[in-house]
Amino acid sequence: MPVNRQIWIQTGKRGLHDFTSRVVDTVAQSGMEEGLCTLFLQHTSASLLIQENADPSARRDLENWLNRLVREEDPIYTHTMEGPDDMPAHIKTALTGVSLAIPVVGGRLALGSWQGIYLWEHRRHGGRRSVIVHIG
Amino acid sequence: MPVNRQIWIQTGKRGLHDFTSRVVDTVAQSGMEEGLCTLFLQHTSASLLIQENADPSARRDLENWLNRLVREEDPIYTHTMEGPDDMPAHIKTALTGVSLAIPVVGGRLALGSWQGIYLWEHRRHGGRRSVIVHIG
Amino acid sequence: MPVNRQIWIQTGKRGLHDFTSRVVDTVAQSGMEEGLCTLFLQHTSASLLIQENADPSARRDLENWLNRLVREEDPIYTHTMEGPDDMPAHIKTALTGVSLAIPVVGGRLALGSWQGIYLWEHRRHGGRRSVIVHIG
Repeated sequence: MPVNRQIWIQTGKRGLHDFTSRVVDTVAQSGMEEGLCTLFLQHTSASLLIQENADPSARRDLENWLNRLVREEDPIYTHTMEGPDDMPAHIKTALTGVSLAIPVVGGRLALGSWQGIYLWEHRRHGGRRSVIVHIG
Repeated sequence: MPVNRQIWIQTGKRGLHDFTSRVVDTVAQSGMEEGLCTLFLQHTSASLLIQENADPSARRDLENWLNRLVREEDPIYTHTMEGPDDMPAHIKTALTGVSLAIPVVGGRLALGSWQGIYLWEHRRHGGRRSVIVHIG
Repeated sequence: MPVNRQIWIQTGKRGLHDFTSRVVDTVAQSGMEEGLCTLFLQHTSASLLIQENADPSARRDLENWLNRLVREEDPIYTHTMEGPDDMPAHIKTALTGVSLAIPVVGGRLALGSWQGIYLWEHRRHGGRRSVIVHIG
């Protein structure tokens, strides 16, 4: 039987928020042995990412690199009413995406040794973010 | 029972084409209550995107920003036989992707309040684009 | 019945490695008629991509364009212990992704006429890369 669960993640500030353990727990509770776990983020200014979970410097560099590529002060923007970090957040979301699918093999998420699951908050002051987890 | 349906979208010109209602209708017709809706675009010069559906200025800025990042006149290109907009279209497609998965919860697509589903046409003169919708 | 299979791909050097036929074979062996084929790459310095399979110049331009966008020598990087190509590889992976879903229609992958499935190796000297194929 397919299962849909909602996970709430409090982000607070910009950057990568690891929620791997939340997904691992949701898969364990489902009892699914061989299947697919799909994550879907219900927002347009944050994204989902699989990234290296070992060295925090890799995540910091990633964040700094993307902030330089997608600048806050850019005369190209006309959508500025929601603050200087809003339009960059939409662009970053478009580049990195809001859905991810990870197989479940032998009752476990088939993540590689160095892979973690992150919610990438692109607003300066994020809030409660909602991820729908589908296991089927 | 899983269902595969084909949706044709006439794009005409470059930019974001909203086809949320087409996907909503396809899900409704399937009768699926708890499941997963996966969209797959069968092209290499257009992409699928979840993006803000409220303010058109956000979509216009997104389009302008990406056009500036991936320029038409770029001496790095050797693949130029199909026109100046062809190679940029392939690059934009690589950066934004051709598959999307959205859970179906209680018979409805689990989109967030501000999320719409877009086909992003990257050619100047797009044509009929084919999206396969898998509901399972 | 859903099926999970592991495909190993020996990449060797940077660039796009076509493994469409491996996925086609895996789908054929599964006997699935109507379903979904999801690919998941278990690494953080390579990615999965659907891209034009006709003209090699398109893939070469794509590679060169991304190498210029995400440079090896960049003072922004602090994560440098694993070599000059490591941090750029993580960034490229974040921009292009590690999961892909392709419907199976009438026993065949629903790829468009010009679409191939590629593993994009971002390290200079790649190794054996593992892709989990879920068919369900």
